[in-house]
Amino acid sequence: MADKKLVEQITSREEDFAQWYTDVVKKAELTDYSSVKGFMVIRPAGYAIWERIQEELDSRFKATGVQNCAMPLLIPESLLQKESEHVEGFAPEVAWVTYGGSKRLEERLCVRPTSEVLFCDYYSKVVKSYRDLPQLLNQWCSVVRWEKTTRPFLRTREFLWQEGHTVHATAEEAEERTRMMLDIYADVLENELAIPVVKGRKTDKEKFAGAIATYTVEALMHDGQALQCATSHNFGDGFAKAFDVQYLSKENKIEPVHQTSWGITTRTIGALIMVHGDDSGLVIPPRIAPTQVVIVPIQQNKEGVLDKAYALKEELVKAGIRVKVDDSDKTPGFKFADGEVRGIPLRLEIGPKDIEKNQAVLVRRDNREKLVAELSGLSTKVEELLQQMQKDMYERALSFQKERTTDAKSLDELVASIDKKPGFVRAMWCGCRECEDKLKEYSGITSRCIPMAQEEISDTCVVCGKKATKMVYWGRAY
Amino acid sequence: MADKKLVEQITSREEDFAQWYTDVVKKAELTDYSSVKGFMVIRPAGYAIWERIQEELDSRFKATGVQNCAMPLLIPESLLQKESEHVEGFAPEVAWVTYGGSKRLEERLCVRPTSEVLFCDYYSKVVKSYRDLPQLLNQWCSVVRWEKTTRPFLRTREFLWQEGHTVHATAEEAEERTRMMLDIYADVLENELAIPVVKGRKTDKEKFAGAIATYTVEALMHDGQALQCATSHNFGDGFAKAFDVQYLSKENKIEPVHQTSWGITTRTIGALIMVHGDDSGLVIPPRIAPTQVVIVPIQQNKEGVLDKAYALKEELVKAGIRVKVDDSDKTPGFKFADGEVRGIPLRLEIGPKDIEKNQAVLVRRDNREKLVAELSGLSTKVEELLQQMQKDMYERALSFQKERTTDAKSLDELVASIDKKPGFVRAMWCGCRECEDKLKEYSGITSRCIPMAQEEISDTCVVCGKKATKMVYWGRAY
Repeated sequence: MADKKLVEQITSREEDFAQWYTDVVKKAELTDYSSVKGFMVIRPAGYAIWERIQEELDSRFKATGVQNCAMPLLIPESLLQKESEHVEGFAPEVAWVTYGGSKRLEERLCVRPTSEVLFCDYYSKVVKSYRDLPQLLNQWCSVVRWEKTTRPFLRTREFLWQEGHTVHATAEEAEERTRMMLDIYADVLENELAIPVVKGRKTDKEKFAGAIATYTVEALMHDGQALQCATSHNFGDGFAKAFDVQYLSKENKIEPVHQTSWGITTRTIGALIMVHGDDSGLVIPPRIAPTQVVIVPIQQNKEGVLDKAYALKEELVKAGIRVKVDDSDKTPGFKFADGEVRGIPLRLEIGPKDIEKNQAVLVRRDNREKLVAELSGLSTKVEELLQQMQKDMYERALSFQKERTTDAKSLDELVASIDKKPGFVRAMWCGCRECEDKLKEYSGITSRCIPMAQEEISDTCVVCGKKATKMVYWGRAY
Repeated sequence: MADKKLVEQITSREEDFAQWYTDVVKKAELTDYSSVKGFMVIRPAGYAIWERIQEELDSRFKATGVQNCAMPLLIPESLLQKESEHVEGFAPEVAWVTYGGSKRLEERLCVRPTSEVLFCDYYSKVVKSYRDLPQLLNQWCSVVRWEKTTRPFLRTREFLWQEGHTVHATAEEAEERTRMMLDIYADVLENELAIPVVKGRKTDKEKFAGAIATYTVEALMHDGQALQCATSHNFGDGFAKAFDVQYLSKENKIEPVHQTSWGITTRTIGALIMVHGDDSGLVIPPRIAPTQVVIVPIQQNKEGVLDKAYALKEELVKAGIRVKVDDSDKTPGFKFADGEVRGIPLRLEIGPKDIEKNQAVLVRRDNREKLVAELSGLSTKVEELLQQMQKDMYERALSFQKERTTDAKSLDELVASIDKKPGFVRAMWCGCRECEDKLKEYSGITSRCIPMAQEEISDTCVVCGKKATKMVYWGRAY
């Protein structure tokens, strides 16, 4: 039996979802508060998840020709102000450096909230001819936005992310790249993190400051609230014109480039917690889990038990499985609970009786399914279980998303549906900003996206009753 | 023949070493200047080298139990001031954030110049008992120090690095860890970057602000100046006492922890350039090279040439070699020079005549050695050449270092030796700060380290003539 004390310190999801989230983050040792308000320490257990997410993304980016680089941390105020929509979006929430050593700076420098202007400045110098295109750059870094209220991973004044910035000769290529990167995000979220997403385009109200089109992948959390997991923007040639990023075409004409940017953040870890976690703590999908199997020796002081545990670890590691042995001086019950809180996908128990019978006990984290496996062929069995668990977790999340997605033909129906059973509501929209504003003011509900996969639910806008142009996913969001 | 125009844009090393360095950094597209003075853009070619260095270090760190994490970017002024030696060392050169959005902050926050105080603050919360020790954390990030004069990689206001911070139950463990990490730096520098180093301890004058002992690996650049490549510090319990990082021992006593920190920076890329580069540009040791082989198709428009080039690439990639095909519309001569400037270890030329004869031409970057290889067994031949080149580059650098290391028994001899043929001079020292100050003031020469491998060159200090206690490596340094 898992030690109850550890588990009891976690509030139940149904009782208080926000408190449950905070408890899991704390008990699974993912983050800690720091001495600066709104800034978090990402502890090793949290950072290891981020490293796994990075690996999956980075290799996919590189396979499409993207290269990594590093831009400066600081941006001069005058550079930030070059693109007017962009500066309006970000200036109110940046941190300003005003002193270097004991000397007051002549111009204020902001800590990057995002690096479009730095990439533009760079591209304006290195792009000269069509031969220099496309440029496909990315950086992994942290950015700072001076948010008022913060929560670990979901909204913090500093967060880790990657930001890709590309420039292209044609508008078609830029649009293609924008969608290609969205597909990569969807792939990693669905196939690695087991988080089903809705792919779509943001409305003009919700799009990125300076973009002509923002695409998004939206997921549903266990409390029925939506979370924007990643975005990909097509800037057209707006930034290019503001920053003079232009090239000499094959036809010998000076043309502005067409630009994109795309990013995903440590917020993804928040999504992972809120999609898969349960009242015993975190549940990490096997493919993304830094540790996939924790081996718990039973009666570990008896001769041969620890040796067997280490030998099994070796065997599993050889098969490419990520394993640790919990050989601390705690009780097995404590170790069970500890492995559960941390969300390790599979627990392997091995004790004197198991050794005698040439077997081990395997317990799945997601559904607590327990089975006895022969030691011969153990790594194959473990691999099978991990694969099955990955599949089951995705399907469970997809069922939940489907169950929490309803259609509405009127405003009352839309709001009542979300109030009663929080989730996505699919409903038609006329395309005007006023309807979005009205709905948000009235109910706190926002447009999540105009999905790629369109259906015609009715003819008229759910808010104003005028002719509808698009089907939209609506919801309350983090 | 390599295109002369490209190569001619690089100043010769002997003519003006500083200008040569700047030219190589620019022509190999490693960095670019940014819109903020003293901050650099690390371009893809430069960043790819850093990624390779990171891979080699990170896997070695993790093999010793180190885990990665992320600490905040900003430090409150009051926290920075808790350890008095440390704040004295860093406060004059930090950047200060004074506004968050439009609001003036109640307390100034500095952009981290290094994160000792953040790790201490964190450890003071999470370390409670001997069971929580050791804590072995590291982070990869950038730091900011407001330097007056800057040069790409060597001295910049922002640089990338890793900083490891560990806490231990005993002084012995902390000392062991400090030296273990120095050994890892030496291993990566010598065996991956082909840079021979002298391992030693810094004198009190040269050690890190707040440390009781700083260890260093020092290398010699082609101009005979020394470069400190990485450092590892033992802090004893000084920080622990200032920050209340203490634990309950097995004997039930409250004890302060013993702490270390260790770091290596993008400066290493500067060392790589200055140790191995030549008048045609960069020369990257094969093991660290992002691209190990560039395939240059000759008469690439002739049928079958490009296909053969791609097929050879596939074959080499399968053997684990990092390869690219230069299929741009430039001339072969331009491509040869371009591959040379960028320091790609091996060039493979393949044209219609080669295909007819079932052969390819291979040219080593380091010594221009050219040989014709049969296509059958090509990947084995390429692997051999890369290994040989790695070995030769290290040995060439080691010979240079030996040739530029002399012994001196008097102050005149020491200074004359370095003035005549810049390099290391080994000479005895009494151990007092005054002698170091005097030497530096008089000649600009500083103590590089007290090497682990001590020899007794004479009985008396080379500066004051009093009894000598240590043999020291002296030199002029970057």
